Amino acid sequence: MDIAKLREAHPDHWMRAAAIRTLTLDAVAGANSGHSGMPMGMADVATVLFGKHLKFDAAAPTWPDRDRFILSAGHGSMLIYSLLYLTGYKEMPIEEIKNFRQMGAKTAGHPENFLLDGVETTTGPLGQGISNAVGFAMAEEALRARFGKKLQDHYTYVMAGDGCLMEGVSQEAIALAGRQKLGKLVVFWDNNNITIDGTVDIADRTNQPMRFKAAGWHVQEIDGHDPEQIDAAIEAAKKSKKPSMIACKTHIALGHAAQDTSKGHGALTDADQLAAAKAAYGVDWGPYQVAADVKAQWEEIGARGREERTAWEARFAEQSERRQAEFNRVFAGEAPKKLSATIKAFKKQISEEQPKMATRASSQKVLEVVNPIMPETIGGSADLTGSNNTLTGDMGVFDETNRKGRYVYYGIREHGMAAAMNGMALHGGIRPYAGTFFCFTDYARPAMRLSALMQIPVTYVMTHDSIGLGEDGPTHQPVEHLAICRATPNTMTIRPADTVETAEAWEIALTSQKTPSVLVLTRQGVPTLRTEHKNTNLVSKGAYVLAEAEGKREAILIATGSEVAIAMEARKMLQDNGIGTRVVSMPCMELFAEQDEAYRRKVLPAGPVRVGVEAAVRAGGWDRWLLGERGREAKQAFVGMTRFGASAPAGELYEKFGITADNIVAQVKALLG
Amino acid sequence: MDIAKLREAHPDHWMRAAAIRTLTLDAVAGANSGHSGMPMGMADVATVLFGKHLKFDAAAPTWPDRDRFILSAGHGSMLIYSLLYLTGYKEMPIEEIKNFRQMGAKTAGHPENFLLDGVETTTGPLGQGISNAVGFAMAEEALRARFGKKLQDHYTYVMAGDGCLMEGVSQEAIALAGRQKLGKLVVFWDNNNITIDGTVDIADRTNQPMRFKAAGWHVQEIDGHDPEQIDAAIEAAKKSKKPSMIACKTHIALGHAAQDTSKGHGALTDADQLAAAKAAYGVDWGPYQVAADVKAQWEEIGARGREERTAWEARFAEQSERRQAEFNRVFAGEAPKKLSATIKAFKKQISEEQPKMATRASSQKVLEVVNPIMPETIGGSADLTGSNNTLTGDMGVFDETNRKGRYVYYGIREHGMAAAMNGMALHGGIRPYAGTFFCFTDYARPAMRLSALMQIPVTYVMTHDSIGLGEDGPTHQPVEHLAICRATPNTMTIRPADTVETAEAWEIALTSQKTPSVLVLTRQGVPTLRTEHKNTNLVSKGAYVLAEAEGKREAILIATGSEVAIAMEARKMLQDNGIGTRVVSMPCMELFAEQDEAYRRKVLPAGPVRVGVEAAVRAGGWDRWLLGERGREAKQAFVGMTRFGASAPAGELYEKFGITADNIVAQVKALLG
Repeated sequence: MDIAKLREAHPDHWMRAAAIRTLTLDAVAGANSGHSGMPMGMADVATVLFGKHLKFDAAAPTWPDRDRFILSAGHGSMLIYSLLYLTGYKEMPIEEIKNFRQMGAKTAGHPENFLLDGVETTTGPLGQGISNAVGFAMAEEALRARFGKKLQDHYTYVMAGDGCLMEGVSQEAIALAGRQKLGKLVVFWDNNNITIDGTVDIADRTNQPMRFKAAGWHVQEIDGHDPEQIDAAIEAAKKSKKPSMIACKTHIALGHAAQDTSKGHGALTDADQLAAAKAAYGVDWGPYQVAADVKAQWEEIGARGREERTAWEARFAEQSERRQAEFNRVFAGEAPKKLSATIKAFKKQISEEQPKMATRASSQKVLEVVNPIMPETIGGSADLTGSNNTLTGDMGVFDETNRKGRYVYYGIREHGMAAAMNGMALHGGIRPYAGTFFCFTDYARPAMRLSALMQIPVTYVMTHDSIGLGEDGPTHQPVEHLAICRATPNTMTIRPADTVETAEAWEIALTSQKTPSVLVLTRQGVPTLRTEHKNTNLVSKGAYVLAEAEGKREAILIATGSEVAIAMEARKMLQDNGIGTRVVSMPCMELFAEQDEAYRRKVLPAGPVRVGVEAAVRAGGWDRWLLGERGREAKQAFVGMTRFGASAPAGELYEKFGITADNIVAQVKALLG
Repeated sequence: MDIAKLREAHPDHWMRAAAIRTLTLDAVAGANSGHSGMPMGMADVATVLFGKHLKFDAAAPTWPDRDRFILSAGHGSMLIYSLLYLTGYKEMPIEEIKNFRQMGAKTAGHPENFLLDGVETTTGPLGQGISNAVGFAMAEEALRARFGKKLQDHYTYVMAGDGCLMEGVSQEAIALAGRQKLGKLVVFWDNNNITIDGTVDIADRTNQPMRFKAAGWHVQEIDGHDPEQIDAAIEAAKKSKKPSMIACKTHIALGHAAQDTSKGHGALTDADQLAAAKAAYGVDWGPYQVAADVKAQWEEIGARGREERTAWEARFAEQSERRQAEFNRVFAGEAPKKLSATIKAFKKQISEEQPKMATRASSQKVLEVVNPIMPETIGGSADLTGSNNTLTGDMGVFDETNRKGRYVYYGIREHGMAAAMNGMALHGGIRPYAGTFFCFTDYARPAMRLSALMQIPVTYVMTHDSIGLGEDGPTHQPVEHLAICRATPNTMTIRPADTVETAEAWEIALTSQKTPSVLVLTRQGVPTLRTEHKNTNLVSKGAYVLAEAEGKREAILIATGSEVAIAMEARKMLQDNGIGTRVVSMPCMELFAEQDEAYRRKVLPAGPVRVGVEAAVRAGGWDRWLLGERGREAKQAFVGMTRFGASAPAGELYEKFGITADNIVAQVKALLG
């Protein structure tokens, strides 16, 4: 690897790439923390990509028709930060580079989408970025079909390393992309043969080009430090109708003493070695400095897309006002005005008809009225369409033959599905929802966490939510999953009791702008409990009084979802015994916790004994409502699960685990002494 | 697909295979629930595998040198149940088949390892079985190297369908298996082109043979209904030094009206269609019946391995008593007698030296004294060896050149790693442990749940456990992960405060037989708090008084892990203010909950105000210890996290989020009024 030769061959390119390398070295050394090697390895690719191909305008970071660049190898955050600084993004002055990894900096250790417009998605956990990218590319296809090439026509570029490619979710992503023929998706594989523990070989010998070809990708192999090869490969990738993978042979920490070693992956802080690297690059720039002419070249690159962006804005202004408004509406993630009335009308009808149905079926009924008025939804399922009830009549299947389709068969890929939904939501213009069995949120967990962290309103339609699913048994029966979702910050976990609550849940999910929702739905039928129509969205209060006590209020039953009906049964029995019993439906603990104390006291006054009922573990947040909120230890009980489930018909399981009206009654009586 | 031709070509084989098909149809119809198609599709493969190749003895289901058969497509549970019944396993009389999916049956909807000896691992969640199988195969290689071919020499066979192969974890598994050259692993791909939502094609077009070849596998493609092709393929697979995949072209629900359809995947309950299928098979067997001669053939198959098993027992008896005892010890999962004394001596030394070190480093120090006396451990990391500190000097790297190695470089494959560990533990003879960052338990989640459900003592070494990891930021900082682990039944989540507690944690993990452990360790250094040596394992009580109050006990601080030191700081400040303060270390909430009430009251008496301290969300079980256990709402507080973390140096993060001695002191004073 002769650096002098590289410099000579393409001197201007070399200097531009050197700027990424030196800023990276300076920033990581300055923070005494971070990952130097990856940006140093991929600087040439980044320089060609941004310099010649990426459609973007540093002055308009949120231009809806920009190409998307995703750094899946998120630890290499200094790569994107350097690029944003060099090309002149206002949000990235040199002070931010100097503040890398410090409190309050936008230049966080791993790139965070909510801190910087120039960061398309939060990465760090490996495999996520490449999987989000599939969603970005799907969104572009869908929006191009909807709004036309003049308004949506761009590429999605990803940089991924060996780590991302070893993560199983990447297989889900590449198989989905291959099947969907996402021809405008381009992945650069940072093929440096190095991971933290040593060479890639100690853990992996996968033939990546063959693997990608097996998944239906177009594959090229190039020298990742040769700008001509990089340029030609990108051209070819753009032309391909298949998603493209460009395997870039690179040297991690190029030019540094730690080049091609595991050490090079991490923080290179030695001052002498840093100086030697800069000398090897042929630059004499001080810390955080870049030669003025090099900076100027980069800023020109940052302005390369200005003309195209301006032309786009002109085209946009030529659209009808209606079209502009619709485009802006969906990109802003705003629900249509009609939604509120549609939900209200639906609720009213349900309160009249009072059907008994599984809430997964309720969900489908809601989607049947929602999808026609919200053309921005894209739904799907991880091969459980008939079980999750996520497909409605008019949607059409989204694939290479029908980009106007709005239903995605994700296959048995819960994690890839969630990550793709993240990508679609981040892209803008799409409101995604998709389903699997609630127990299999386990597979999607890393992506679900990121939905919350990234503050995006993805909707998870999670059915078969408890022992109520019956004979499939403990591997399928969630018991701790409500606890998991509720413990995750910035997540609304909503478990509706009937069809009316399901409609209200959907309204909350569809109007959310910064919070993902997990809708937790039954397999089995439940009766309509909200028989008295109310325009107000009661689920949005998190919990409310469903049935008041008759006579002196001695007991409060708090229940969620399918257990609310059981609580109502118990209430009847208790009232027949002269025990005044209030039933509180608590579909969303997070929303209830956000209400002011006065409301919470109204719903859960001190005094009456309390029994919580939910076919899940108590750790799902119950202590707060039973012991706290002026509950008292001696005067409360929880009726629910304490262990994994079992394989048997649902009714027998509810009996076996004591989640019955009889048991609730017995608990109340015991507490009353 | 001419069934008559199949019958004619191999009439005896056909009848034996038909028995699997008819029992499956009968059982699923009887339960009105289940999955008929898969066993009907793979019956021919199963018949040849069990009939001619699988080394097993129905009379000795736990024979340590049996071949392992794993049904990764766990929904096809009637396949394994039929085989166990037909071959004559005592635990599977026909009554169990008749009781399929009913309360209390061993024949649960999906096969459960703890209900049946003949079930090697619990499957159902897709991708798990094939990933466990990698662990089974690794265990066989390791034990063969350790105890010799005469005692350990067997194959691991897996049946997996399109669902398993679409799950990302399968890529981690096959890449690991390929790298590890697990030549005695054979995967049968049930290539029936059908998933629940339709043909495989609607979601996937991956060229599976090419994909497996890319991962270093030997691949064959056969007609899955031709016993000669099946037989030849298994022979060739056994000879291959690479792991083998046999792509079996099959027809789901063969012979039934629902053949080759998605409907065929599920419960085929129509009586007429069932009768027609039996007629197509050429049998006139009533419900749950099999012709006597066919049953006899199957029972002969069940006894095929008896001679070999008896010979094995003779060879085993010839071993020295010491060798026999050691073999039995490790297969029983019993810790060596020396362990207790070793841990005690270590603790004593630490209490004298009182080092300040990160508990991840403490963990390594413990492993340094444990690994030499427990030759059954196999450790590893998902490419974070230097960070997880899971490698100790003498282990050697486990790979195809060194099967005596005891360290596995799992690569960036947290989920595959956890699933492989499950497989190793289930195989017997191995006690696996492995690490990643605590936040990335998210990736391993489905396998971690199964560790608990399957009741196996796998040890998860989870480091970088909080905002204490600093600048890597919120994507890496766990806040809700203690809540997740603690909410999972049958899981010990242990967060030790110092090196002594870490040693006690390891002792608990290594002596566990039916419960997995999650050791939650710091990135950053912590002081030794257990300065007074005690032989007793205090961590095994879950929580204990670390420092008693001086003077009237007005406050109790409850803390875990790195926050115990902060609590001790606060205690000093409070005592200086004349406020008698007890500090309770609570390394394991599950174990504390198991203590009798008297002990718990001793540790947490009513009266004093309580402040809990943990750099994680309150949902991690804190309400019980603060509000319950005779705590009182008005007199408690929690100092911890309420949101995701941030990217900054660790010390600044603890300040920012108020997890400081000053804040604890302020909380106590406010509560005391």
